[in-house]
Amino acid sequence: MSAFSDFACSIARTVDVVGEWWSLLILRDLFAGMSRYDEIQRDLGIASNILAARLKTLRDAGLVERTPDPADARRWTYALTDKGRELYPVLLALMAWGDKWLAAPGRQPVLVVHAACGQVTAAVPSCSVCSQPLRLEELRFLKGPGGKAAPGTAEMGRYLGQRA
Amino acid sequence: MSAFSDFACSIARTVDVVGEWWSLLILRDLFAGMSRYDEIQRDLGIASNILAARLKTLRDAGLVERTPDPADARRWTYALTDKGRELYPVLLALMAWGDKWLAAPGRQPVLVVHAACGQVTAAVPSCSVCSQPLRLEELRFLKGPGGKAAPGTAEMGRYLGQRA
Repeated sequence: MSAFSDFACSIARTVDVVGEWWSLLILRDLFAGMSRYDEIQRDLGIASNILAARLKTLRDAGLVERTPDPADARRWTYALTDKGRELYPVLLALMAWGDKWLAAPGRQPVLVVHAACGQVTAAVPSCSVCSQPLRLEELRFLKGPGGKAAPGTAEMGRYLGQRA
Repeated sequence: MSAFSDFACSIARTVDVVGEWWSLLILRDLFAGMSRYDEIQRDLGIASNILAARLKTLRDAGLVERTPDPADARRWTYALTDKGRELYPVLLALMAWGDKWLAAPGRQPVLVVHAACGQVTAAVPSCSVCSQPLRLEELRFLKGPGGKAAPGTAEMGRYLGQRA
């Protein structure tokens, strides 16, 4: 995995930081409001050594922080940092795709309600500038200032447009 | 990994189907327009047996299809299916987060331009119903028809609201 962090690619770097599929589900549980180690372990049915390792990776990456449990000072409670919380669009995107392509029709495990409009929603990517939906056909990928031809993106440059 | 597919969670099911971090970067390369095995291998610097295994997983999951290379019938070219193409919101979300949190300021490896407005953009999740941005504080997660108390989501139900 560690090579991923060197790739000139924000996708590779992000998955390197998140660390492993279990990590996404640990983040999911923290988003849902769980905070205690035992509870996350029970929820996921994950081996304790794996959960401990994943939580440490998430803490080292600054996505999760722990504080002593007010109810029992020998224990910790875990919570998302701002950096971790900002991963929610990734989880919403995974969820929307899975609901569409992998759940039986009408059988989503979880419903997401947008309190602002009151409706069951699914995340759609929109433009941070003009707020319109980002349709794939309307996206152009250009060489960025941090790009390089190196493992992970050795050929990519030939497929990217130049900035006008 | 296979247990993930049984979880009553669209996030877990999706990451189970995508299969592995390398798979996301293979999908990335296909989105960028690469189609040939050799080129993807050179781009990623990935071992041939791993690339072959990942492509097979992606094909078995219906995300990628292959057709004989018109230039050389002994070779294949690879392309995204509709099901695979619809993962672009996941990649955009990973990219936006990595650009913000892991790239040096102003040093994104790749710029995404929204052709409709002409600006460099970052994906923001918006509501499929009302089109407004989905802010985390405005989301409520409710028990869905496909939810269950089982490994992967054993405790989750206690954290989800009931449908009104």
